[in-house]
Amino acid sequence: MDKLIYLDNNATTRVDDKVFEAMLPYFKEEYANPSSMYEFAKPASRAIKEARAKVRDMLNAANEKEIIFTSCGSESANEAIRGVLNMNKNKRHIITTKVEHPAVLNLYQTLEKQGYNVDYIGVNSNGELDLEQLKNAVNSDTALVSVMYANNETGVIYPIEKISNIIKTQNPNTKLFVDAVQAAGKIPIDVQALGVDLLGISGHKFHAPKGIGALYINSKTVITPLIIGGHQERGLRAGTENVPYIVGIGKAAELAVDNLKYEMTEVKRLRDRLEANILKNVFNSRLNTGVANRVPNTTNIGFEYIEGELILLHLSDLGICASSGSACTSGSLEPSHVLRAMGVPFTAIHGSIRFSLSKYTTEKEIDYVTEVLPGIVNKLTNLSPFQNELEELRKLKS
Amino acid sequence: MDKLIYLDNNATTRVDDKVFEAMLPYFKEEYANPSSMYEFAKPASRAIKEARAKVRDMLNAANEKEIIFTSCGSESANEAIRGVLNMNKNKRHIITTKVEHPAVLNLYQTLEKQGYNVDYIGVNSNGELDLEQLKNAVNSDTALVSVMYANNETGVIYPIEKISNIIKTQNPNTKLFVDAVQAAGKIPIDVQALGVDLLGISGHKFHAPKGIGALYINSKTVITPLIIGGHQERGLRAGTENVPYIVGIGKAAELAVDNLKYEMTEVKRLRDRLEANILKNVFNSRLNTGVANRVPNTTNIGFEYIEGELILLHLSDLGICASSGSACTSGSLEPSHVLRAMGVPFTAIHGSIRFSLSKYTTEKEIDYVTEVLPGIVNKLTNLSPFQNELEELRKLKS
Repeated sequence: MDKLIYLDNNATTRVDDKVFEAMLPYFKEEYANPSSMYEFAKPASRAIKEARAKVRDMLNAANEKEIIFTSCGSESANEAIRGVLNMNKNKRHIITTKVEHPAVLNLYQTLEKQGYNVDYIGVNSNGELDLEQLKNAVNSDTALVSVMYANNETGVIYPIEKISNIIKTQNPNTKLFVDAVQAAGKIPIDVQALGVDLLGISGHKFHAPKGIGALYINSKTVITPLIIGGHQERGLRAGTENVPYIVGIGKAAELAVDNLKYEMTEVKRLRDRLEANILKNVFNSRLNTGVANRVPNTTNIGFEYIEGELILLHLSDLGICASSGSACTSGSLEPSHVLRAMGVPFTAIHGSIRFSLSKYTTEKEIDYVTEVLPGIVNKLTNLSPFQNELEELRKLKS
Repeated sequence: MDKLIYLDNNATTRVDDKVFEAMLPYFKEEYANPSSMYEFAKPASRAIKEARAKVRDMLNAANEKEIIFTSCGSESANEAIRGVLNMNKNKRHIITTKVEHPAVLNLYQTLEKQGYNVDYIGVNSNGELDLEQLKNAVNSDTALVSVMYANNETGVIYPIEKISNIIKTQNPNTKLFVDAVQAAGKIPIDVQALGVDLLGISGHKFHAPKGIGALYINSKTVITPLIIGGHQERGLRAGTENVPYIVGIGKAAELAVDNLKYEMTEVKRLRDRLEANILKNVFNSRLNTGVANRVPNTTNIGFEYIEGELILLHLSDLGICASSGSACTSGSLEPSHVLRAMGVPFTAIHGSIRFSLSKYTTEKEIDYVTEVLPGIVNKLTNLSPFQNELEELRKLKS
């Protein structure tokens, strides 16, 4: 293969041609400030309205006023979490999970320093959330529960509707924020059916550009703004609107809905093919998620007794992009907090690789990876200091 | 004229062709997450580094580490102001001006509700800051002074170097934040010569797209992040980097520096021509800024006894874009807080129009506006209920 094989779509995605085309007029032609009063500003302001309706449709929000645009998934999370807490200053208890995105976990660590009491819910060995622990954790002081919809490293989907019911039964005033960054474009999202109060998405995970996000805020939920200033986004997000990218995330939302069937059949078929072939051909590989319900594009495979970063380096030399965790923690030597929370054995945790596909992934690409990966792993396995353990494993598997 | 005459460049600008070209590869080709470790991510991460150096050069910062990218001018201001206050929790006094951008003023109103004591420094009838009042206001409890570099409505430039000296003499620990959104691209900015601690700019005011800003933070100044999460921007701004727009603001910064001479001669010449012709041909017009030092592209002219919004409507019908204040307050019937602070007489404040030019403005466009404007103003003047006052004024001027 002389071209790139990009299997890191949970880190970011290529901008879709149609998204790109939709954005183009708003850089140099319809460049007005949408808040301006003259005729020239009408197309920009209309374009924002249309994009908002498309994001509303993607999330099945009841009203487009429940959608605000932000600059990224991190901003959506900060806005939601701190916005809810600011409106409930007397409540000091928050619940989240051990497997949230590092960005969200960092925010909670900061809130702990500010005097908040944060409970982190654990997961089982498949990466599934401990709902009993969640149920017991909710109390009258719980301002907020924050759970991701799908995990960025493993693709495991959390049962948001069930989680919402548990929370609201325990305390109807507790707000539920869902970080749906890794669900958007991969599975249907229906904020009404899910019963969430707030839900955040990030455009660049579903073929819009990096630098645009959205936040669903249920009409019954009141929050404070994070970026205070102008009247934009109903006073909830100041700053001149990023018209091209708002148009882009709108178009990407529309395309994502249209593509869901393909994602859940063909992308899933390719993911399953990749996964099955690796597990068959590499004796010291293991699927880190077992039987858990997952988004269709993600697989997380552990290669025992070898170093994942070395696998990634060899793959990169062949033009294959994959990763060992979130891009936000790239370069860190700490093993994944997600796999640790799942209790993935020490022998596999350092050698775990995430492959995340997209609608652009082809069977030819998948088969090329399947072809070259065993050789790479074998080479590294032969250099591993754990030869006795590997021999045991080989006997066990054969 | 059958094409648009855009004289509202203080509201937003057209993206420069070269900025657009520079951004293009980062949407669909070099689309990697710059935090990823593989080879494919290197061009994106290199592009950010280069853009940061260009913004450093534009502001003459000592080190590129002093520059972080944000999503807009409002985010830069929120990050700077709240970041400084969070690091100085025991200090409760802030100083700003009566003529800041509404976005900044809104933030201060919120801070007042949170228990901060805010002093608002006034201006004289030319729009110049009362430096004596500023000097007297700084005390040992003053955490922050926040002053804009150039006013968005009038173009008046504030003497930042002098202001910095005044503040630091009174209290060397007081931090100075400068909102330079309306200065960038119009006059040289030298953060070292100015002696500022923090300075914010917004790309879309100098031909980068809407949705990208930057913040200079002097290496001796420590602030907390506003968007907490990933390690991006040295931990000061979480979120996957908006690579295309970062490249865009870098290119725009480079072009703005190259264009400064043109801005300060040719754009100024056209602005002066527009201004002189209007003042000459319209008896009930007045320059709202008098002799104040201004950025080269802005003029704010009051038309006495008539309604500015009606002038704008008529101009819009002819494809001419101008405004009566900041786009953020468009649609509001409140007269400009800036002109009120300057004491612009009641008779002129409602009829004040801002024309803001750019490098794309032509002499032909200016002459067309000069040609049609007196007719529009005359028509509205004839309909004004203040005929006696207008007659007095006519006699006075002739």
